[in-house]
This record gives sequence, C-alpha cells and structure tokens, in this order.
Amino acid sequence: MSETVKRTKDISAEQAAREDDLVARVLASFDGCSDPRRLELMRGVVAHLHAFLRDVRLTEDEWGAAIAFLTAVGHLTDERRQEFILLSDTLGASMQTIAINNEAYGSATEATVFGPFFVDGSPEVSSGGDIAFGAAGEPCWVEGSVYDTDGKPVGDALIEVWEADDDGLYDVQYTDHRTAARGHLLSGADGAYRFWAITPTPYSIPHDGPVGKMLAATGRSPMRPAHLHFMVQATGYRTLVTHIFVRGDEFLASDAVFGVKDSLVRDFDRQPAGTPTPDGRVVDGTWSKTTFDIVLAPEQS
Amino acid sequence: MSETVKRTKDISAEQAAREDDLVARVLASFDGCSDPRRLELMRGVVAHLHAFLRDVRLTEDEWGAAIAFLTAVGHLTDERRQEFILLSDTLGASMQTIAINNEAYGSATEATVFGPFFVDGSPEVSSGGDIAFGAAGEPCWVEGSVYDTDGKPVGDALIEVWEADDDGLYDVQYTDHRTAARGHLLSGADGAYRFWAITPTPYSIPHDGPVGKMLAATGRSPMRPAHLHFMVQATGYRTLVTHIFVRGDEFLASDAVFGVKDSLVRDFDRQPAGTPTPDGRVVDGTWSKTTFDIVLAPEQS
Repeated sequence: MSETVKRTKDISAEQAAREDDLVARVLASFDGCSDPRRLELMRGVVAHLHAFLRDVRLTEDEWGAAIAFLTAVGHLTDERRQEFILLSDTLGASMQTIAINNEAYGSATEATVFGPFFVDGSPEVSSGGDIAFGAAGEPCWVEGSVYDTDGKPVGDALIEVWEADDDGLYDVQYTDHRTAARGHLLSGADGAYRFWAITPTPYSIPHDGPVGKMLAATGRSPMRPAHLHFMVQATGYRTLVTHIFVRGDEFLASDAVFGVKDSLVRDFDRQPAGTPTPDGRVVDGTWSKTTFDIVLAPEQS
Repeated sequence: MSETVKRTKDISAEQAAREDDLVARVLASFDGCSDPRRLELMRGVVAHLHAFLRDVRLTEDEWGAAIAFLTAVGHLTDERRQEFILLSDTLGASMQTIAINNEAYGSATEATVFGPFFVDGSPEVSSGGDIAFGAAGEPCWVEGSVYDTDGKPVGDALIEVWEADDDGLYDVQYTDHRTAARGHLLSGADGAYRFWAITPTPYSIPHDGPVGKMLAATGRSPMRPAHLHFMVQATGYRTLVTHIFVRGDEFLASDAVFGVKDSLVRDFDRQPAGTPTPDGRVVDGTWSKTTFDIVLAPEQS
C-alpha cells in the first residue's frame, strides 16, 4: 500500500537503524515459541504493527488516543454488545477474514459477513412456508435452487435465513424474547427452495459507542444496505454464509461493514396490491419477489 | 518484513483480486474524512491490518481468538491496571513510538519507555539528597552532569528519578499511599547532579492477565532488567525520558518491554561494607555507585 501511505518525512540512517533494530529484537523475542503457527501469527502482528507505527510516524499523543479508544471499546463490550467485532467489521477485517477463508471456486456463490444476529435452533418451515413469524414488513417471496459448481442440483441442503424487521431490528434486539424473521428449510430433491419472508430494509449498526464516534469523525455512515442472511449447509460442500442485497438500495456503495458483493445484489420486484402470489396466498397490499440460485463449492476447496 | 512473514500458500488471481478490491473499498470509505492526519492514520490502520490478515491467512477461529483476547484485555483494564498499555509495551509498540518521537540527534542520550509508574509532584531533594525515603534496598550513589550536544553544561535542569524497591514494587503499587524511591532535583550551574537512591533490582511486569498468558504461550519472560527511571527537562531542550540499566543484569537481553539500549547500560560498582562514601554518609553494609552523564537534544530536533 505504499501508494497510499507514505512516510511523512525522511529520517536519518542512524534513526532508521534504531527503529529496524527494535523490530528485530521484538521479532526475536518470540523465537522460543514452540507452536509454529502461533510464532507466525505473533511475528505477523509485530511486523505489521511496527510498519504501521513507522509509516504514519505515530505521535505519543496519538498513541495515547489509541490506548484510550481501545479501552473504551473494551469497556462497552459485554454479553449483549461486542464493540470489538463492530470495530473489526467497520475496518473491513471481518469481511477480509471471510474472503480469505472462502476462496473463489468456479461459479460458487460468494460469501459475506456472518454478523452477530444468527441464532441456533431457528424454527423449521416447510417449502413455501413463512419465516416472518409476525415480524413487521412487506411480504417477500424468495425462491431459487441449490446447485454444485457442475450445475448438479443439491437436494436436502439446510438453508438458514434471518433478517431485520421493518424497524431495522432483529428479533434478538427486542427484550420480549420473540422469535421472528428467521427460520430454516431444506431444498427439495431437485435443489429447489421457496419461502415467504419480508422485504429487507436498510438499518444502522449500533453507533452510540466508540466505533460510532470513529465513523462520525471520519465522515462515514453507520448504515447497512437492506439484506437477507443465508447460511447453506450440505454434506460434502463448503458451508456458505452470505446475504442477498436489494438492487437500488441507496447504501449499497457505503455498507458500514463492507459486506456487499455485486454478485449478491438481486432484484426485489415490488408487486402491486392484488397481484396473485405464486402459492395463492392472499396478501393485503404490495409484496415483492426475488430469485436467488445458490452454488456450493466442494468441501475441500 | 517479507523475509519473516510469507503467504502460507499461493492464491488464485481471482481470489487476490477479491481481496485487493476489499482493501480498496475500505480505504475509499474514509475519503470523506475532513482531517488529513486522521485520514492518513485510518488509511494506515486499514492498509497494515489487511496486509497482516492476508499475509498470515488468518483463519476464522483465529479471528475469534483475537476478538476474545482483546475483550479480555479490555475487561481487565481499569483505573489501576492498564492491560492495553502492557500489550503495547510487550509488542514493542510503546518503545517504537518513543523511538519515532525522539529521533537520533548527535550525541543526545537515547530515550526509552516512560512506563506507568511516574507520579507528578514527587518530593524535591537537594544536591546529594536521598530519594529512597525509606524504600527497601541497598544504597546507591548516582552522579553525573547534564550537557547539550555541543558539550556545554546545562544548569537548572529538572531531573525526576523513580524506581522500584528491593521487592520489585513501586510505591504506588502499595496500598498504604507511601511516597518512596522517587524524587526530583536540579542540576547545578556546572550541569552536575548527585543523589542517593537504591540499587535497582529486576522485577516482573504484571503477568496474571491475558498479556501474561500471551507471554507464557510464546515462551517469553515477563521480567524487566533492573533500572532507574529519569525524566530530564530544561528550557530550550527536548524532554528526555529514559532509564539507566545495570550492566551484568541477567535480563538485559530479554526485557519484556524492549526498553534496553546499549548506550543506557551503566556500571553499578558495588562497594564493600565500610567503604567511605562520597559525602561522608555512614552506610550500614554494602553500597553501590554509578555515573550517568546526560546529553539533551535541542527542543526542535
């Protein structure tokens, strides 16, 4: 990234030698580490941390501000609020980790961030069932098929879906222990699946803490574009954690957590009130429909 | 640092493009930041953080372990314990920040880490006075002169000194509100200073928390070599924060916070019981003496 970050001034050879020597000493301090992977990780942390400090020529006041920031992040974090994950998300570190661990493989559907709102043991719905469970929002028909990278249908794939309601909140963000806007179903023998959900709407990540202050201080938005979460698992295939996004959403280009991939943006076609639904359901008012074909990579890929 | 940290495997061009694209999007997200320095810092954080993730090919489990580690560091940190500073210290980041902000300048004395144990408003002692104030330890005579980089004496320099006692504890680590093993004095018109202290002894940094676990898991020692802290201030000169270390100390090569500089290692000569002291003080048993000439850099250097 030397195009982006430059040394702010030239330093003397003596000064550079002092800084180099320190890096070498810190790296060498881990030589006694008996676990090779841990050794690699610690050397990586040290090398990149020191390269950062030297590239930006961090001042002592800025170092103090960084310590204070991390302290505030730590103090806000508890069982209900994970400000470190939010920090990782907003620096793109979560998404980069996902990218690294879900390598491009042929036509396999791209992965994106998992997020903090998945819950184990969601309700099962049958094919064509409704995962809204009373969540406020416009009905949305979702259908598609699960394939492998050779185009062969994958039956019995476990499809978990979850999303925020019209107020931008997941069920677990309410204190009434509701279960809503989440569920799971299986693909048919032909790989096909279909269900009712609600049309996703944009929402803000929690921004009343230090991470929110960082976003505000750097001119960034805390908004996430509307999306519907998927996790798809099938024997012999790599588990896929992803979202689909709503084409035309105003926040697609400024997702606070960098989860958007062009390949995951879908048309959500709004249907006028009275339009017949695919399954004969009577809907009060408008509804939308979208299609999402899912391609799973082999397990060892 | 490409000699030290290598990609653990080759990745496809498509995969590399996805990872590059993500870095570019995260960097671009800060384009609206109106403060140029803040923009530079955030871009630096992002560039180096992502380079780290990609170089080590961080796994999702390792990402989770990093989040849990930072959470534990945050939860241990309070008014009395600053585990983030300890983390910065043990990764050499504090020392690198000191090095960056105290550039090599002619013969100027090298700086080292400030540490968490300085206290404003220490007792003043006159020339030849004793800063031990009852702290347990062998008496130690310290003398030297303060100069500028042209060799001219610097009079009226404010010299703050502080150290741990024979049990490896600073006064503020006791709960009885004692003030001991710290004080300040002024250099004379000829630049000379002298005082009694106690012979420094090695001690362990706090290692009962996550940073201590990190040190243990990587085969590192939590020990600091014996040292005496100095902060020297004089009008027109750069403030010097440094230590002197005891030649022969077994931890000189493995200081847990990387504060040792060869130029700061001094002879502390042990004197047999009964040896006359420079100022005629009667000492019960052995005592030691050391010399430390201090060279201050100009203020704007």
